[in-house]
Amino acid sequence: MAFEYEVLKTCAQTGARIGRLHLPHGVVETPVFMPVGTAATVKAMSVDELKEMHAQIILSNTYHLYLRPGHELVKKAGGLHQFMNWDRPILTDSGGFQVFSLASLRKVEEGGVMFRSHLDGSKHFFSPEKVMEIENALGADIMMCFDECSPYPCEYERVRAAMDRTARWAARCKQAHQRPEDQALFGIIQGGLFKDLRRISCEQISELDFPGTAIGGLSVGEPKELMYEVLDDLMPHTPKDKPRYLMGVGSPDCLVEGVLRGVDMFDCVLPTRIARNGTVLTWSGRLVIRNATYAEDFMPLDPDCDCPVCRNYSRAYIRHLFKAGEILGARLASYHNLYHLIDLMERIRQAIWEDRLADFAKEYFAKAGRF
Amino acid sequence: MAFEYEVLKTCAQTGARIGRLHLPHGVVETPVFMPVGTAATVKAMSVDELKEMHAQIILSNTYHLYLRPGHELVKKAGGLHQFMNWDRPILTDSGGFQVFSLASLRKVEEGGVMFRSHLDGSKHFFSPEKVMEIENALGADIMMCFDECSPYPCEYERVRAAMDRTARWAARCKQAHQRPEDQALFGIIQGGLFKDLRRISCEQISELDFPGTAIGGLSVGEPKELMYEVLDDLMPHTPKDKPRYLMGVGSPDCLVEGVLRGVDMFDCVLPTRIARNGTVLTWSGRLVIRNATYAEDFMPLDPDCDCPVCRNYSRAYIRHLFKAGEILGARLASYHNLYHLIDLMERIRQAIWEDRLADFAKEYFAKAGRF
Repeated sequence: MAFEYEVLKTCAQTGARIGRLHLPHGVVETPVFMPVGTAATVKAMSVDELKEMHAQIILSNTYHLYLRPGHELVKKAGGLHQFMNWDRPILTDSGGFQVFSLASLRKVEEGGVMFRSHLDGSKHFFSPEKVMEIENALGADIMMCFDECSPYPCEYERVRAAMDRTARWAARCKQAHQRPEDQALFGIIQGGLFKDLRRISCEQISELDFPGTAIGGLSVGEPKELMYEVLDDLMPHTPKDKPRYLMGVGSPDCLVEGVLRGVDMFDCVLPTRIARNGTVLTWSGRLVIRNATYAEDFMPLDPDCDCPVCRNYSRAYIRHLFKAGEILGARLASYHNLYHLIDLMERIRQAIWEDRLADFAKEYFAKAGRF
Repeated sequence: MAFEYEVLKTCAQTGARIGRLHLPHGVVETPVFMPVGTAATVKAMSVDELKEMHAQIILSNTYHLYLRPGHELVKKAGGLHQFMNWDRPILTDSGGFQVFSLASLRKVEEGGVMFRSHLDGSKHFFSPEKVMEIENALGADIMMCFDECSPYPCEYERVRAAMDRTARWAARCKQAHQRPEDQALFGIIQGGLFKDLRRISCEQISELDFPGTAIGGLSVGEPKELMYEVLDDLMPHTPKDKPRYLMGVGSPDCLVEGVLRGVDMFDCVLPTRIARNGTVLTWSGRLVIRNATYAEDFMPLDPDCDCPVCRNYSRAYIRHLFKAGEILGARLASYHNLYHLIDLMERIRQAIWEDRLADFAKEYFAKAGRF
């Protein structure tokens, strides 16, 4: 059995829960934020740094790895863990989102999607079976079903068609999955911002009895309030004995709001992407380190943070690194931002243990504001 | 006393020596290679990584720090060590080389040099006194005199004039130096490729009795053989009781040839610069990791290297990182290249202890070739 999930504690104040995922490469405590390592590397970070900041599991992108360096190469290297020297759990997405957002679309048919690479325009075909072949070659602890992700905004009938296809593709993925003994396959709920469709999709996917339930197609440009409304309505209907994964989310406020609604797993490029642009997350909100106001500011990025960056470097120094275009700037800001979100999740888990997540959220937002 | 130098051992085979520099921030064993941290950061590296690879002392560039973030800011931060979080020794150059190579020159006069910044074209004036003020503000363990560096090629009279001015400026630097109790000031020998001028410059600079002797104006584009000829002639005349620093050198073959001629200290951007372009140094010569030949090569960068990069990552993975434009590629290659040169210097010191540096050099070149 590749996968076991146990709920250890439910917050009396909110219903949010602490759980434990048992995976081939280790145990993951939830709620968890998964740093994104798109191309078999969490941008600017080393695996030692990720371990030091207590990253429990990382996400890698099937679409990108398929295009470069190719899943066959990764397989020859001994799988993704071996290739990138990461011995803790990995989750691979299915490429569904990327095919519909990054690639130039050729044609979506029942069989699959013909698309052109965003790298060189070359033509490729992703079917549920093909994606399972790729994800099996990569060998992550958790893999995702190939789904059809609707854009935002999108009319009802188109969202429904994509949702139904996602369910049919999920069944085909389950069928095609070749390594159930050491890779867990999660299903993905679609349905856009339509509550009735979300509930139908939830039933369709739950019927297939995957070991985990993902919510896809959110955080695709819609106002956050709409996302929260969908989650409010949907989450109580998702299986309670399985982890719930809100894909592509996110910002610190969305992590807190997600956990409040019962989400157990998150991933997002946000912390590393904004870091490379010189924006850092703090317990008092965002800070744009390039700003002239920090030129002679010898405080740490966040005086309330105990990460090695905050213990050792000043805002003035990090601002200098960004102004000078130095790689170390991106490194330090990325480290700090990832540490911040992992620290946030640890504090959230602590608040759940103490049955005070609602209080925690209130205190958190009072100080940090909304992202 | 900011500075003490002792010779511990002289190689019977070559006359190369092992020494120890006692500096305010620690002891440096020579011969030593100093990684270059131009803008208060060794490009792509963290200070922890530099310590892990046994970097004993780093060099930082006065010209760059003066322009950005400014020496006054660094001083306010508590000095360069504090600013960049490096508690081991630092050497700052004088900006002489950069003013004559990077900046747009306005005018060189006896008083100093008027130049335009390579960053924004703004006008600045460097005199020996101004450079001492800057280097005193930066607070490195070792600082360099402001010198006039001749280009290559350059006619005799022009080289002689620059050499004479360098000597006069050296005297002014010594006079202007405000922190002799905790910063050591080294003089710089100029004279281009003219052996008689080099000997004259050596006398001029030696007369001023600096605690260390640098050889500037080499490795500026001339064939390596010409540099070696100059060193062959010059080095026996340099003070034996002081460390000898060959500025801006370099490549692994030049390090070996330099030590054979009695050089104790080196610095160069080469290992980090070529690393960012995907070229790595190995005990069997250079390797261009982007080449297609390494696409499915799961060997380490250098099978004869025991650095963490070679212990944990394959050529195929690192090539992938470069192809994907990932920062980790530059990090791993930079780490490996710096480790390689530091390891080379350790092996050189070992060979000196064993009175077999000539044998070592022969074996080394037989396997690694010339860079």
